[in-house]
Amino acid sequence: MRLRDLGEFGLIDLIQRKTPRTPGVRLGIGDDAAWVSTADDSLLFTSDLLVEGVHFSLDWISMRDLGHKSLTASLSDIAAMGGRPAYFLLSLALPDLTTQRAAALIRGIHAVAAEHRVALVGGDTCAADRMIIDVFLAGFAPYGAVTRGGARVGDDIYVTGTLGDSALGLALLSKPRAQVSARDRNYLIRRHHHPTARVKTGMQLAREGLARAMMDVSDGLAQDLGHICRASGTGAVVRQELVPLSPAFARVAGPGDLACALAGGEDYELLFTAASGDRKSVERVARRTGVAIARIGECVPKKHGVTLVDPRGESVPLAAPGYDHFKGAC
Amino acid sequence: MRLRDLGEFGLIDLIQRKTPRTPGVRLGIGDDAAWVSTADDSLLFTSDLLVEGVHFSLDWISMRDLGHKSLTASLSDIAAMGGRPAYFLLSLALPDLTTQRAAALIRGIHAVAAEHRVALVGGDTCAADRMIIDVFLAGFAPYGAVTRGGARVGDDIYVTGTLGDSALGLALLSKPRAQVSARDRNYLIRRHHHPTARVKTGMQLAREGLARAMMDVSDGLAQDLGHICRASGTGAVVRQELVPLSPAFARVAGPGDLACALAGGEDYELLFTAASGDRKSVERVARRTGVAIARIGECVPKKHGVTLVDPRGESVPLAAPGYDHFKGAC
Repeated sequence: MRLRDLGEFGLIDLIQRKTPRTPGVRLGIGDDAAWVSTADDSLLFTSDLLVEGVHFSLDWISMRDLGHKSLTASLSDIAAMGGRPAYFLLSLALPDLTTQRAAALIRGIHAVAAEHRVALVGGDTCAADRMIIDVFLAGFAPYGAVTRGGARVGDDIYVTGTLGDSALGLALLSKPRAQVSARDRNYLIRRHHHPTARVKTGMQLAREGLARAMMDVSDGLAQDLGHICRASGTGAVVRQELVPLSPAFARVAGPGDLACALAGGEDYELLFTAASGDRKSVERVARRTGVAIARIGECVPKKHGVTLVDPRGESVPLAAPGYDHFKGAC
Repeated sequence: MRLRDLGEFGLIDLIQRKTPRTPGVRLGIGDDAAWVSTADDSLLFTSDLLVEGVHFSLDWISMRDLGHKSLTASLSDIAAMGGRPAYFLLSLALPDLTTQRAAALIRGIHAVAAEHRVALVGGDTCAADRMIIDVFLAGFAPYGAVTRGGARVGDDIYVTGTLGDSALGLALLSKPRAQVSARDRNYLIRRHHHPTARVKTGMQLAREGLARAMMDVSDGLAQDLGHICRASGTGAVVRQELVPLSPAFARVAGPGDLACALAGGEDYELLFTAASGDRKSVERVARRTGVAIARIGECVPKKHGVTLVDPRGESVPLAAPGYDHFKGAC
């Protein structure tokens, strides 16, 4: 069998099966970040690998945005555990860039690092014929870590911000459309190139004990909600008209673009579940952290699967595969 | 200016200059590993990036050895801080291998992980047209971290094991030689493909407070001793006849191969300095941890530079450049 047949999650399963259990590791492979307990502290670890030609094209993204995005992906993982990001290492393979371009990359990284008060503490560098950026981020989990496995039947399902902007921005980059205003185009592409990690919101949800299961939407709502349901042993119903869309998305999206909101990746929004009695508290977290939080559905018994109720009231399986690195595009 | 002109260390300097200072970070960019203090713990972080075609060729190394070597490089960094390695993440970009080959890579990693009791806790994966392995390793520094900057004039300079085997093994791989026995060839190539991280020795030297400055020899003795001298504000004199060579190296090496022992990389031996009054204690650590430790010279005032005394008693600058990823081979 080849990796193409096994797929990305098959490979991760293979690695996981071969990995022995270790005391102190509260949560190893398979969630947004690893969670280990030392004497007095809970530590979170995550890494995000970006490879030129696989995750980004230098024809499209500026070095500064690339720096921003590469750290944001890891910050979002720590946010999705309800943790406080703290220290990161940077592994960089670079082609023979100008030093200005290399410096712009570093500036982009440090701008978002400063915003979240995380410190670059090390890494590795080498020359290569294509760019590789791997960010390792360590953080703390002062309120414990919110895993993917805590959702219960009856929980509300929430998502921060809006979904699909990043995927639609990518679609506009790869195939320009005539009827799109420059403003909408720029907004959507910026959401693809300059995403925001919801660190404060994630921490506040953990601090108040509201999020029972949480992850970030990096592979698309359909796939990522599937991860929560599998880990928690529940099903889910999502109401399509409740999935939050940006005004730009609503203006630009054609009938074929709904898939961007349901299965498109790299939104870096938080997807979480909370008890239905906690709705007012969740709304307060949204106001307090200045991030919109939309209730999009609820957890149901596992036997009902993961479904989408479309605007006509019809249920369809929400089983879009998202993106698998080894099998190819969704 | 381009990265080729700036060089690897120029790039690291650039990143370092743009990186703000942060409380809690006791040691950031520039040593073998980062050192941060949390409430009660000292943590060490390091990463090592291996790129196919840059650091290794799949024509030469087995997947199992590659797995072994990729984690060993990071273990050696934690060893060089006198730390205890604990948790690692694995970022893997893989071409479309057979799953057997992917599994062999993971087995190689876990074999050395088990030996050092470190746990794989996460990472990232993607498909790419060449292999990329990035290991992020976190550890503890129960005795504080031994940096590169603690050497003092009059200190003895020590190195574990033998030097140059790895570089000579690599030379034999790239250009076979007629007069070399299969046994010597295999030994030297194995030292290149299957190096050993001196974790126990590094920890014991830290525990007993013997090593004042320490690093691992990954870029060659000349370059790495230069790092210690620069960080410590000293010079150094190394006696060529004291540089430890393996019997295989001594048998195989021609007159042109001494550079392998002095400037060849990837030995993953420990290079450290200790007070001259501690010789007996250092010898005891060698016996106790089962690793040979050779005294190869001493630290002198900075103005004398870093020199090698050859067997005829003549001093020459020990200034071989080692390997710079952006400028090319030494």
